[in-house]
Amino acid sequence: MSTFKQARVLITGGLGFIGSNLAIRMVERGARVTLIDAMIPSYGARTFNIDSIRDRVQVNFSDIREPYSVDYLVAEQDYIFCLAGQLSHIDSMRNPINDLQINCLGHLNVLESCRKHNPKVKLVLTSTRQVYGKPQYLPVNEQHPIEPVDINGIHKLAAEQYFQLYHKVYGIAATVLRLTNTYGPRMDLLSQDKGFTGIFLRKALLGEKIQLFDGGHQLRDFNAIDDVLDALEIAALGDHPGRIFNLGHHQPHSLREFVEILAQRLLFEIEDVPFPAERKAIDIGDYYGSYEDFHQATGWKPKIPLQKGLEQTIDFYEEHLQHYLKSHRKDV
Amino acid sequence: MSTFKQARVLITGGLGFIGSNLAIRMVERGARVTLIDAMIPSYGARTFNIDSIRDRVQVNFSDIREPYSVDYLVAEQDYIFCLAGQLSHIDSMRNPINDLQINCLGHLNVLESCRKHNPKVKLVLTSTRQVYGKPQYLPVNEQHPIEPVDINGIHKLAAEQYFQLYHKVYGIAATVLRLTNTYGPRMDLLSQDKGFTGIFLRKALLGEKIQLFDGGHQLRDFNAIDDVLDALEIAALGDHPGRIFNLGHHQPHSLREFVEILAQRLLFEIEDVPFPAERKAIDIGDYYGSYEDFHQATGWKPKIPLQKGLEQTIDFYEEHLQHYLKSHRKDV
Repeated sequence: MSTFKQARVLITGGLGFIGSNLAIRMVERGARVTLIDAMIPSYGARTFNIDSIRDRVQVNFSDIREPYSVDYLVAEQDYIFCLAGQLSHIDSMRNPINDLQINCLGHLNVLESCRKHNPKVKLVLTSTRQVYGKPQYLPVNEQHPIEPVDINGIHKLAAEQYFQLYHKVYGIAATVLRLTNTYGPRMDLLSQDKGFTGIFLRKALLGEKIQLFDGGHQLRDFNAIDDVLDALEIAALGDHPGRIFNLGHHQPHSLREFVEILAQRLLFEIEDVPFPAERKAIDIGDYYGSYEDFHQATGWKPKIPLQKGLEQTIDFYEEHLQHYLKSHRKDV
Repeated sequence: MSTFKQARVLITGGLGFIGSNLAIRMVERGARVTLIDAMIPSYGARTFNIDSIRDRVQVNFSDIREPYSVDYLVAEQDYIFCLAGQLSHIDSMRNPINDLQINCLGHLNVLESCRKHNPKVKLVLTSTRQVYGKPQYLPVNEQHPIEPVDINGIHKLAAEQYFQLYHKVYGIAATVLRLTNTYGPRMDLLSQDKGFTGIFLRKALLGEKIQLFDGGHQLRDFNAIDDVLDALEIAALGDHPGRIFNLGHHQPHSLREFVEILAQRLLFEIEDVPFPAERKAIDIGDYYGSYEDFHQATGWKPKIPLQKGLEQTIDFYEEHLQHYLKSHRKDV
């Protein structure tokens, strides 16, 4: 894939889990990469994530809620990957105004800047399967009803609609990917409420007990980070602006299976407990999505089974775990 | 309807078109009424709107984007009608950030205040048929796909979802009405882009030429303000929290018919012109909605035909037109 060679690529949330992995991929492709990150504590950004490419990328510490710096930063970019965001569902309920400003105002600032200063840019937004709410059928495809079950889902949906609208009205090339559980090297292990994958991985790595709610039989689909990077590249280079695509995996696994794969390499205890009421209130039951639309449009499909992806992830953290157990302010 | 007697009623956007008419109705019911209005120029608020009840309501000039005053104002209310908003579709495209802050942040502040300080309040939000986008079938019912065609529609949808979510998660009694073209006394005649009804009415009253795009054959449904007030009362007193209902009218009319009814009483010229490109880009074609769900749930149906409603409207403006031709800062 040569199109990113010498391309100017901007990644918002560029020091986070997906952003930093994408930055490394883009450097490998020969792109000229700029990363924006607001370094908000607990959001997953850390400088160690880009340790291997630190002198080959421009790092711009700023907040996309601030329109003037965004105006300046988006100009002359060829591709912008919009990955910045508040990801915690529970935090979105605790502080909905903050979620609004980051997940709506921030993306809207980027789009407005593109409209005014760089309408020929190609944009990719990462959204979430959370917009579907509790699945009415499985696998969930893009025709599934949209019923966000928390503030984060409402705002992610609004952001998706911004991208579609700016394509429809202004012709800006904007594609949206709805991610499911993405895992891999550089994922945030500290957050208590950004999904179970990081929590379980940290506990397993530290030999701490993992609790499974109601037996852990809830099904999920999991995408290894490298498969998601492929999807992001394909979405940016492809010609499907205004479209929204699910990612996903053809082989769903239960949370228990996820934990049991970790247990093949790591030593920790598994405990079965009832579902806590606060979590149950916003739980969506089983979920796995269909990526058939994206496959039809682009040929993408995930190549990495959960077993292999988790092994690569454990390999990474066995080497670098110490960098992921402290807040980002102390990570170098 | 006696339940509003002595009830504490808060109306956001209380000096606007619908808000002020509702305030008058609530005073007639014997309610203790507080009106919030930010008096943002061009949004339709004017003190003359409440001239007849000025000493029987509390008027609180403030902005619902400001959380602390909202916290204070929502406490101890029995009913809150959430009518404040940025209504211009074109303005929402010109200044999407402003639309976001008013139509999302403002309502979210009200809901957050209710959650913290007054969870037993009953809330009604006025939304818009605009969330459906271009109709895929007619009449449009609540099962119609949601595809907002502008920023205002995206944010109105997010606001609806906030109200549903706060009902589902926190048990707050919140009902949403999706209004169609509401007209009547006290409607804003100055805005150039808040829908054609006010524009046409002003031109007709002033004897100015009215332009019809592409013959004016696009169909719309129209609700007289008194029918909308009935619906607001029923929604507040009823027991359908978390629901979203269309209003509408069983007798749609073309824009041309609307203008021709005006022409029975008022003297002005009608000119046919092609659809301007900027307007065509966000036009939705014919629209009329089904209010069957709301009728089934509550018995509400519109009682006022367009002919009669427009006559009452013309009666009002023939007496008070001078108050509606200047900005609100000069309206008393």
